[in-house]
Amino acid sequence: MKESSPMQDWQKLSEKELHGKKLDTLNWSTPDGSLLKALYTSEDLKDLPHIHSLPGLDPFLRGPKATMYAGRPWTIRQYAGFSTAEESNAFYRRALAAGGQGISVAFDLATHRGYDSDHPRVKGDVGKAGVAIDSVEDMKILFSEIPLDKISVSMTMNGAVLPVLACFIVAAEEQGVSRSQLSGTIQNDILKEFMVRNTYIYPPAPSMKIVADIFAYTSEHMPKFNSISISGYHMQEAGADPILELAYTLSDGKEYIETALKSGLKIDDFAPRLSFFFGIGMNFYLEIAKLRAARVLWSKIVEKYSPQNIKSKMLRTHCQTSGWSLTEQDPYNNVIRTTLEAMSAVFGGTQSLHTNSFDEAVALPTEFSSRIARNTQIIIQEESSITKVIDPWGGSYFMESLTQNVIDKSWEIIEEIDQMGGMAKAIEQGYPKMKIEEAAAKKQALIDNGEEVILGVNKYQLTKEEEIEILEIDNPAVRENQILSLKKLKSNRNEKSAQNALEALTKYAETGVGNSLELSIQAARARCSLGEMTMALEKIWGRYKANTQVISGVYGRSMEKNEQWQNIYKDILEFEKQEGRRPRMLVAKMGQDGHDRGAKVIATAFADVGFDIDLAPLFSTPEDVAKHAIENDVHVIGVSTQAAGHKTLIPDLIAELKKLKANDIIIVAGGVIPKQDYDFLYKAGVKGIFGPGTPIPLAAADVLKAIKLARS
Amino acid sequence: MKESSPMQDWQKLSEKELHGKKLDTLNWSTPDGSLLKALYTSEDLKDLPHIHSLPGLDPFLRGPKATMYAGRPWTIRQYAGFSTAEESNAFYRRALAAGGQGISVAFDLATHRGYDSDHPRVKGDVGKAGVAIDSVEDMKILFSEIPLDKISVSMTMNGAVLPVLACFIVAAEEQGVSRSQLSGTIQNDILKEFMVRNTYIYPPAPSMKIVADIFAYTSEHMPKFNSISISGYHMQEAGADPILELAYTLSDGKEYIETALKSGLKIDDFAPRLSFFFGIGMNFYLEIAKLRAARVLWSKIVEKYSPQNIKSKMLRTHCQTSGWSLTEQDPYNNVIRTTLEAMSAVFGGTQSLHTNSFDEAVALPTEFSSRIARNTQIIIQEESSITKVIDPWGGSYFMESLTQNVIDKSWEIIEEIDQMGGMAKAIEQGYPKMKIEEAAAKKQALIDNGEEVILGVNKYQLTKEEEIEILEIDNPAVRENQILSLKKLKSNRNEKSAQNALEALTKYAETGVGNSLELSIQAARARCSLGEMTMALEKIWGRYKANTQVISGVYGRSMEKNEQWQNIYKDILEFEKQEGRRPRMLVAKMGQDGHDRGAKVIATAFADVGFDIDLAPLFSTPEDVAKHAIENDVHVIGVSTQAAGHKTLIPDLIAELKKLKANDIIIVAGGVIPKQDYDFLYKAGVKGIFGPGTPIPLAAADVLKAIKLARS
Repeated sequence: MKESSPMQDWQKLSEKELHGKKLDTLNWSTPDGSLLKALYTSEDLKDLPHIHSLPGLDPFLRGPKATMYAGRPWTIRQYAGFSTAEESNAFYRRALAAGGQGISVAFDLATHRGYDSDHPRVKGDVGKAGVAIDSVEDMKILFSEIPLDKISVSMTMNGAVLPVLACFIVAAEEQGVSRSQLSGTIQNDILKEFMVRNTYIYPPAPSMKIVADIFAYTSEHMPKFNSISISGYHMQEAGADPILELAYTLSDGKEYIETALKSGLKIDDFAPRLSFFFGIGMNFYLEIAKLRAARVLWSKIVEKYSPQNIKSKMLRTHCQTSGWSLTEQDPYNNVIRTTLEAMSAVFGGTQSLHTNSFDEAVALPTEFSSRIARNTQIIIQEESSITKVIDPWGGSYFMESLTQNVIDKSWEIIEEIDQMGGMAKAIEQGYPKMKIEEAAAKKQALIDNGEEVILGVNKYQLTKEEEIEILEIDNPAVRENQILSLKKLKSNRNEKSAQNALEALTKYAETGVGNSLELSIQAARARCSLGEMTMALEKIWGRYKANTQVISGVYGRSMEKNEQWQNIYKDILEFEKQEGRRPRMLVAKMGQDGHDRGAKVIATAFADVGFDIDLAPLFSTPEDVAKHAIENDVHVIGVSTQAAGHKTLIPDLIAELKKLKANDIIIVAGGVIPKQDYDFLYKAGVKGIFGPGTPIPLAAADVLKAIKLARS
Repeated sequence: MKESSPMQDWQKLSEKELHGKKLDTLNWSTPDGSLLKALYTSEDLKDLPHIHSLPGLDPFLRGPKATMYAGRPWTIRQYAGFSTAEESNAFYRRALAAGGQGISVAFDLATHRGYDSDHPRVKGDVGKAGVAIDSVEDMKILFSEIPLDKISVSMTMNGAVLPVLACFIVAAEEQGVSRSQLSGTIQNDILKEFMVRNTYIYPPAPSMKIVADIFAYTSEHMPKFNSISISGYHMQEAGADPILELAYTLSDGKEYIETALKSGLKIDDFAPRLSFFFGIGMNFYLEIAKLRAARVLWSKIVEKYSPQNIKSKMLRTHCQTSGWSLTEQDPYNNVIRTTLEAMSAVFGGTQSLHTNSFDEAVALPTEFSSRIARNTQIIIQEESSITKVIDPWGGSYFMESLTQNVIDKSWEIIEEIDQMGGMAKAIEQGYPKMKIEEAAAKKQALIDNGEEVILGVNKYQLTKEEEIEILEIDNPAVRENQILSLKKLKSNRNEKSAQNALEALTKYAETGVGNSLELSIQAARARCSLGEMTMALEKIWGRYKANTQVISGVYGRSMEKNEQWQNIYKDILEFEKQEGRRPRMLVAKMGQDGHDRGAKVIATAFADVGFDIDLAPLFSTPEDVAKHAIENDVHVIGVSTQAAGHKTLIPDLIAELKKLKANDIIIVAGGVIPKQDYDFLYKAGVKGIFGPGTPIPLAAADVLKAIKLARS
């Protein structure tokens, strides 16, 4: 009789433990559909190409630096900004004193979209989701008493990247810090804006020209500054699984390389200063593997361009824990989630990290919640010994196998984009956007079906939620303050030099000659405002308007066996029988908030269950939305909000409907709305509010009920 | 010219990154003194014996079960209990409904020490740090509407293990559940009580006889019940580093095996139902390696006894995150710490887990804090995918190396104990207690010197701490309620059978014939109280009194270069010059609380800096302490408290001093005291309060100042 092998013993024992279930019931899959095993052994390492690789050496599987955190830990860099430059500056200085190690500026949506605070379209946005910056004067206040030659600054800016970066450079210059001393990162990743975040200003072609100008300028004058942060984060937030996020981000990176090369730069001029930015969600192992795989893949991609400088092939990244994974419900659970995600980022070998605050599912962080978020990183760095070892997962049978799987799967997606002619072409066809929206709808269905658990949302819900203290921004006061400063700016400047500088920008847009960042710096010095600089180019290039499309069927197919879903479907048919048409809803976002994941998921799911759905264009005003609703004769407007403008914009919308005698159109709201605002909105006339985590069948049933009630 | 190897490239690059520092500055050590590297590679696996081992197979490096969490996750078992049986029962039922998966009972200290609630010595302890249980009637209430044939119950009980286990069995029996159906664990680990926790009742020899009786009874009648939980947890809480904790715990296990074998049992009769219990602190990697190593070591230890049943060699364990690592300061940081510790336990492959609540540095958990603690585990189990893979660290160059290091180092310590004749002998000599106290003093010095960082305690302290809501126990009310129930119990029972049952126990103590658990079950059926059963044996065996000794020099040596420390030393010499003698302090614990880590560390450190130190015996009453203080003519009494009796016991002590006209002796207090109680204590006359995290130099300076002030 042959003796059994240890593996056979294990299999036998496992089957016994499973009480007759088959061994392959232990297999599992990651969100991209990869099938994984429960047990990995030394056998699994046999065919892996990189298991003897070392940190700091190509292809950087084990880290971009040789000594990694044992030499120096990652940078604790918390993204923050709100209200005025004064308030944000005070916040930064307190954070640096309490263990923060770098600054990461969040700008308000008005700034992102290139509008000064006095522009009528941004009434609800000024100072809300970030700090309001209208000019170099604001920028100087923002960094007052912060030594820009020592503290590195990251700026999340894509649309209005020229005036913002220009104001930053001039603010530093007037503080006595030369551009060559500046360290930090400008996001400057416009491709993903067209894909998911929608904070663009100009059409794709001139937008890419700006990117190339920034590469050229920084490579010549700012050797310590990262000229781009190629960002997957917002793709994951919009619903992409980690592998989709990784592949599309690297494809974006490839497109930027091509753009820079075409503009005449050499690969080693700019590639060492390209940086990346990934989201880190709750898929613990996969997120670690993603970062390890990212480095191998990027090295392989850049290899093709024959760099001489090894640093051109080295992927360095910032990470941020997932905002999407935070729940409004039982919010202290988010401290746990963020800790897990931070661990993934650290084990993956990130170069800097932002950890979200536990209240960010409903509001901007308070002083307390942002301290706990920062402390999450400090505790990992200083109390856990985790930093002592380089790539501690290296060699793990499972982690090495998973890393290779991520490499292989991502490469397939990268090749698919290549075959479409690169990312710019793929974006033109709307392909990546569609893939991400599909992933988002699928994920939502898994959650609404209870197949994916979110504690407190679809399992062990609390019967009563406690209110937590949140940060409230007095948006009208901030706006007034900004308007005063703008007046002062314009009355104190030499008007002629200001106009000359703006004309030079316009001329650049016409001719394409010169460097747009160089020209913007001159305009910033001449005290041109951010809105003026933006308009100087917009005059020629125009402002980009996206087509909004809704995918169909993905959510509905996943819900086919859901009884509640079937019931709503029947109710809607019944409604149609009685009313002669289906319930019709306009899904709208107002103000400058382009985060449209929620709106898109609602639109596709409601359509799948039988609603007639209209989708308002992004960046609508209340007037636009009221008009659109009346023209399409909808029963209900569903306002999706994520950037805190709802207390200004929803009352304006209701007033506009009243003015147009369309009071019969009811309003519901969903998204990031603090409980503290519910009463205010109900009093203003809102008929239903759906916070994060509301299962869509529940929302659909409630909306249908509200429509019926309004008609009875 | 020879080409350089990748390892040489890595070294060169590392030295460059270190700006001239040597590569070995990256080496680091774990608290036991093991020197570790920063980088591990495939080379490090070469000589490791277990890297091809598989889960479920001997020596169980990768887990005791073949399918581990992929088959079934660990059990979420939260240790809880407070106030009355009614209140604790309601708490358990709510916890089970919200995702808890087993019960773990915390008894109050009166119960631990075998006193009924009406005993004068336990006035301050009843219902405080756990639930008060005086009889089978209380036990029936405790498990009311909880199906004991389905829910497994763990009971942390060592001193009064006989009456408690007996009442549990009888309570189940009267609910219709037979003893053979009961699943769960009784701690029953008396050795570690003599070493660190001090919740013993009888002297060591009869105590070990009880352990053997329980092994014999359960092996015959309770096949699903773990007859012991051999506990390292309390060693780690008392200051042991993870390797010391592991080695001593396994040595305890060996001693229990020997005891059982000597009592006539066969190894396979009881070894499969031995279980373990480890603490999990902030040393992330080391704690994972500890659990992996523990299984290999236990298999090796049991091997010697030639078991036939493979399960005899399989170490299964419960874990609890470290209470010691929690801070009173900025307590929400504890959510982060507990999450990290929970991850270590899970990656190590624990069978069940308790996660501490963030407020446990100062009080018993509230409903809110215990929910967040439980949610920590639920989120890891259900949201993170972590459970999908068996021993995910398996193969990691670093983790496998570290695991082998823990195996080797622990084995040395186990052999050292063997050479002393086993753990019982070593304990008689006070050796392990001394080693643990040394480790505690060393750790405290590292913290007070700032070499070990604790966020909010010795780095980035808050200028103002917010008060948090805490659970307050109305100890006099609970006691009154218990006294009433005891009266009822005694008046309703058949007095003659009760007395017969008690006499049978006394006779057993005299003769050694019979099984003490069997006899206790009869006494519980006859409605004898816990105190009566304890006394029936105590009559013959007596109550154990430990020698209290203080180690010397360990703390002081580590502080030699600390300027503050030197200044206090000089101040004390100055005091001596003026007063003719040194400041003298009596360090005292009152009530039934045996957690003496804090008292011991204070005593040794204060002695090292020049105080004359007296240490009161454990379990003193306020009267004992006052007498002791007067007889030794001390300047100050330092009351160390950890179990919430201070609001009763400290005022009693002050009243006693007043009665004896010794008002000049001042009182300071330290330990686990909620901020909410500070005012009460100051008003009662306490001159200083030192919460967890107070650096000892600061406390010493303050105490000296208070003495001087009282004498001026």
